[in-house]
Amino acid sequence: MNSFGRNFRVSIFGESHGVGLGVVIDGVPAGIPLAGADLMADIDRRRSGARGTTPRKEADLPEIVSGLFNDHTTGAPLTILFRNENTISNDYRNLVTHPRPSHADWVAGQKFGGWADYRGGGHFSGRLTLALVAAGVVAKKVLDGVAISSRILEIGGCTDPAGFADVVEAALRSHDSVGGLVEVRAEGVAVGWGEPFFDSAEACISHMVFSVPAVRGIEFGTGFAAARMRGSEHNDPIADASGHTATNHAGGVVGGITNGNPIVFRVAMKPTASIAAPQQTFNTETGGIDELRIRGRHDACIALRAPVVLEAAAAIALADLKLTARTR
Amino acid sequence: MNSFGRNFRVSIFGESHGVGLGVVIDGVPAGIPLAGADLMADIDRRRSGARGTTPRKEADLPEIVSGLFNDHTTGAPLTILFRNENTISNDYRNLVTHPRPSHADWVAGQKFGGWADYRGGGHFSGRLTLALVAAGVVAKKVLDGVAISSRILEIGGCTDPAGFADVVEAALRSHDSVGGLVEVRAEGVAVGWGEPFFDSAEACISHMVFSVPAVRGIEFGTGFAAARMRGSEHNDPIADASGHTATNHAGGVVGGITNGNPIVFRVAMKPTASIAAPQQTFNTETGGIDELRIRGRHDACIALRAPVVLEAAAAIALADLKLTARTR
Amino acid sequence: MNSFGRNFRVSIFGESHGVGLGVVIDGVPAGIPLAGADLMADIDRRRSGARGTTPRKEADLPEIVSGLFNDHTTGAPLTILFRNENTISNDYRNLVTHPRPSHADWVAGQKFGGWADYRGGGHFSGRLTLALVAAGVVAKKVLDGVAISSRILEIGGCTDPAGFADVVEAALRSHDSVGGLVEVRAEGVAVGWGEPFFDSAEACISHMVFSVPAVRGIEFGTGFAAARMRGSEHNDPIADASGHTATNHAGGVVGGITNGNPIVFRVAMKPTASIAAPQQTFNTETGGIDELRIRGRHDACIALRAPVVLEAAAAIALADLKLTARTR
Amino acid sequence: MNSFGRNFRVSIFGESHGVGLGVVIDGVPAGIPLAGADLMADIDRRRSGARGTTPRKEADLPEIVSGLFNDHTTGAPLTILFRNENTISNDYRNLVTHPRPSHADWVAGQKFGGWADYRGGGHFSGRLTLALVAAGVVAKKVLDGVAISSRILEIGGCTDPAGFADVVEAALRSHDSVGGLVEVRAEGVAVGWGEPFFDSAEACISHMVFSVPAVRGIEFGTGFAAARMRGSEHNDPIADASGHTATNHAGGVVGGITNGNPIVFRVAMKPTASIAAPQQTFNTETGGIDELRIRGRHDACIALRAPVVLEAAAAIALADLKLTARTR
Repeated sequence: MNSFGRNFRVSIFGESHGVGLGVVIDGVPAGIPLAGADLMADIDRRRSGARGTTPRKEADLPEIVSGLFNDHTTGAPLTILFRNENTISNDYRNLVTHPRPSHADWVAGQKFGGWADYRGGGHFSGRLTLALVAAGVVAKKVLDGVAISSRILEIGGCTDPAGFADVVEAALRSHDSVGGLVEVRAEGVAVGWGEPFFDSAEACISHMVFSVPAVRGIEFGTGFAAARMRGSEHNDPIADASGHTATNHAGGVVGGITNGNPIVFRVAMKPTASIAAPQQTFNTETGGIDELRIRGRHDACIALRAPVVLEAAAAIALADLKLTARTR
Repeated sequence: MNSFGRNFRVSIFGESHGVGLGVVIDGVPAGIPLAGADLMADIDRRRSGARGTTPRKEADLPEIVSGLFNDHTTGAPLTILFRNENTISNDYRNLVTHPRPSHADWVAGQKFGGWADYRGGGHFSGRLTLALVAAGVVAKKVLDGVAISSRILEIGGCTDPAGFADVVEAALRSHDSVGGLVEVRAEGVAVGWGEPFFDSAEACISHMVFSVPAVRGIEFGTGFAAARMRGSEHNDPIADASGHTATNHAGGVVGGITNGNPIVFRVAMKPTASIAAPQQTFNTETGGIDELRIRGRHDACIALRAPVVLEAAAAIALADLKLTARTR
Repeated sequence: MNSFGRNFRVSIFGESHGVGLGVVIDGVPAGIPLAGADLMADIDRRRSGARGTTPRKEADLPEIVSGLFNDHTTGAPLTILFRNENTISNDYRNLVTHPRPSHADWVAGQKFGGWADYRGGGHFSGRLTLALVAAGVVAKKVLDGVAISSRILEIGGCTDPAGFADVVEAALRSHDSVGGLVEVRAEGVAVGWGEPFFDSAEACISHMVFSVPAVRGIEFGTGFAAARMRGSEHNDPIADASGHTATNHAGGVVGGITNGNPIVFRVAMKPTASIAAPQQTFNTETGGIDELRIRGRHDACIALRAPVVLEAAAAIALADLKLTARTR
Repeated sequence: MNSFGRNFRVSIFGESHGVGLGVVIDGVPAGIPLAGADLMADIDRRRSGARGTTPRKEADLPEIVSGLFNDHTTGAPLTILFRNENTISNDYRNLVTHPRPSHADWVAGQKFGGWADYRGGGHFSGRLTLALVAAGVVAKKVLDGVAISSRILEIGGCTDPAGFADVVEAALRSHDSVGGLVEVRAEGVAVGWGEPFFDSAEACISHMVFSVPAVRGIEFGTGFAAARMRGSEHNDPIADASGHTATNHAGGVVGGITNGNPIVFRVAMKPTASIAAPQQTFNTETGGIDELRIRGRHDACIALRAPVVLEAAAAIALADLKLTARTR
């Protein structure tokens, strides 16, 4: 459901156009210095503003409701709350009868018998990733000594960062959207995180990553290219007593367990489903096919804002694996 | 750890060269007809035998230890046990000091302080997927009305099934191994399985799939290609009241929830790490680099045996999502 | 940690003297009518005010932050937040060096390395039961058709409700506190809730009940008296096709599974640890034994306010069992 | 369902008259010396034989199927299997139409739609506690330094151990059964085990204890007597820097967290439901009330065999709390 993790457990709540959204983080070790301001760097990285991101502007100011005392974590659940301020919900009225293609509108309506909050995607909105980012900051603090970074590898098929803006601009001009490819790295991870079989490091990270809206695929190390490699080429021989390998085709995980080399994975993000161009959709009242014009404010390229979210996903999964590894 | 699932819960145990291996399945609805013989079709599909698969031959006869009465499931935990019979463990003695490249030997030794059973990969062995396949048969019965199928798309980069054998033969001749690409489809899945956020259908399926040894990547629907598509091209408009879409770029999951269209995902398998050709590795006793010649019996292309295992992974995840969806 | 439940999952957060406290409830079925006002009846029952309850007055107004739309639950996580308003935290400064006898002060300090919020008991405060009561109201709605009631059987050994006030008054006069005994009943529970072995109905209810501060014991049906009975006397013969039994010594649960008869359990609450009379305690700075005078505002008999909290505990556990039973 | 524990996780399976029963234990730290013989002391303590225990004799020889190598735990799941040998299942045929009073027969039939294995109570049988005892031995090894003991306080109301045999004999003569009261102590538990709120030490222990068949109540420390005490009398003042208290009314747990003093709890066991004397029960075929004569072999006083089972329950819960406390 809306909780993830065994010993570092994150529970997400909220809606895009409701009162707000947030996260309860259970299992945070006591004594970690933390202030609302510490969250702002990553929150700002997630914020819209670049060309091709939504014109909706939110202050995104975190309120730490519980689990903090004298500017340090207490060991009790840490709750971070964000209030929505800039909502224009009238834009979404027609979505009840006209579900947006490739959006959660229709399945949410089916699953929850018509009771789901449809405004701005409700609980399914990408805005919920703000709570993930906040939890990610806490997770990064738990992962003291681990450096998590990310970069956009491709936007709309373009691999030159200097050209990303042009690709997005072209999509905007044609009232369309584009996808992208993001790489995440975690350096400094200790040897031995990850559990045999079901809670392998890749399993836990991918579980979290596929919780992020718009993700369509994930690969570790050489990933899909590994399917075309030979063993003699793909194998990473161990080079020293700390487990370093000359190559890192494994992306830092062998047998489901971290091997001390950098964890590297790539994530494919689909193009935003909400596009300005007119589309066909099913009219749930009349049973006919109607033209749909999506109003509301949307990103033309969600991948632009995804790197810090995927870092957070990695950090949350790794923080849980780190704490769980202590029980062994 | 070694359990997966909320309401259909699978717990795996066992080793490659120990007494045996098996699975406890909790949450199986009562009254499902089941006999050991029902398991054999999928067990046979997983079995080695083709050129490029391990010469180790095991009967793989399941013993249903609990949860069955009068040839039907009882609602109590279902336990399926397989005994190992054909083990040649002397082959593995040198792995303690000479960890195999890209194998779990070294990380397992580190994580478990030297106490792990190293024979044949111990608990990390691909042989454990036999238990997954058995659980998959039960899951498929729970998923009455769902048809799960799989096919090999590529072996060692070759996309023509008629050429797979040649590719594997060539690898064998050079004492090497090759990877592959497998596609899994599930047709007949109802609308509304999958939970918002952390237990999205993709999250749960990918969690299971990355529990299978040698998996390096997973993608749903258009997958990584989605990163290069535009929204107007990628979106799947809803065509009728049952939610069918003309295209199925989403691979059957929107907003983390099944939409009634076929679930489609592809999995990249790396080339088997255990190759016959000599390799360099770290000597944990001397601290030097030695040449390693891997003895033991191994698959040259694990992807050949993966389809039924990945079907099982999909079935287990979907069975859990189906039962959980009933609580809504 | 701070979450309970498999399919109806409650996560508690907050502190007695911090920003506030609350609960996230995951797995609430969609379409249940709910408003903040619906919570007030049970919140008022928990409220202090009677002689012997704390003079601290709080409005206890719930803010429903998520999961509600058009006055109905949406199926997304339901979050209820309470802000603290009436805090006098200076009262608690001396507890850091002088842990209160039979209070969590010392163990919390040890477990969380001195970082725990000690004001008013912090996260360990009985004030957190406010969040339980709020979750209990939602659980009761999920348990449509089940009537949960409670009554105080004893206060300070007195079994006559007309005498409870006198007993408490006498304790207050001697700067002391008293315990009590509370009975909870749930009528209208269906047959078949509860899982074999570890998630028996009693196991789940007792798990929740022992989460309530000050609970020292729980018994179902005849409870401890059963230890002195004979089987011929204790057995409840089934009387009709709906499973009704003439006697209900089992308290509505047989083999861990509800049998359709009323669920009945009794809970022993210890006397409040915070008493006004001077006590001896260990001085963690000097290593000596000092006299402690507890300031702050406390209940002289916590059992007076416990019935609605224990109803909530029962309702939460039963709601989870009900939803889980649907997966069978 | 049939799993318990977050980081030391026990999954029980099996039936009284099926192939056998057993347990998978996940999260066992590597390197613990273990052999099948180590299990026999506690298995022998649970064994029947005394007057008033079942005449069914089983060898109860454990087979360690996985997780053991070179006589030490490996860190992989530890599986222990027991085969049933001495079953006389014809005795149980009439229970399908004539459910035994205060037994699981009827609820199991309802919950599992008639598919449950009714022979000897099937999965609901007290024989399953054999698996608990085996897991308890492993848990005790994880709890290195903790001494867990138990004693029978009462049998059929008699508090003099010298008289227990007479009480049981008298019950047997009248074809009846008696209950009992058992106390469990754990000495040497460290300070700080148990989590705030839902996973308090009492909550986790009571959850496990109520999984044991025939348990009707549990109390910690002064327990139900606390309800009649005053705070000045009940409070345990801290006496030194290690947290020792002169009295131990709390039974070793304050605020849900262990305080370093002995954990003490008492458990009420009901009289065995299966008595030899004729009883009335509902005939599910005819809808009438028939006389029932229970055949099969049963204990006249299950409390006689309960101490080692309740020790195991305590050990399992404490082992999980110990490992979880390491994540803080």
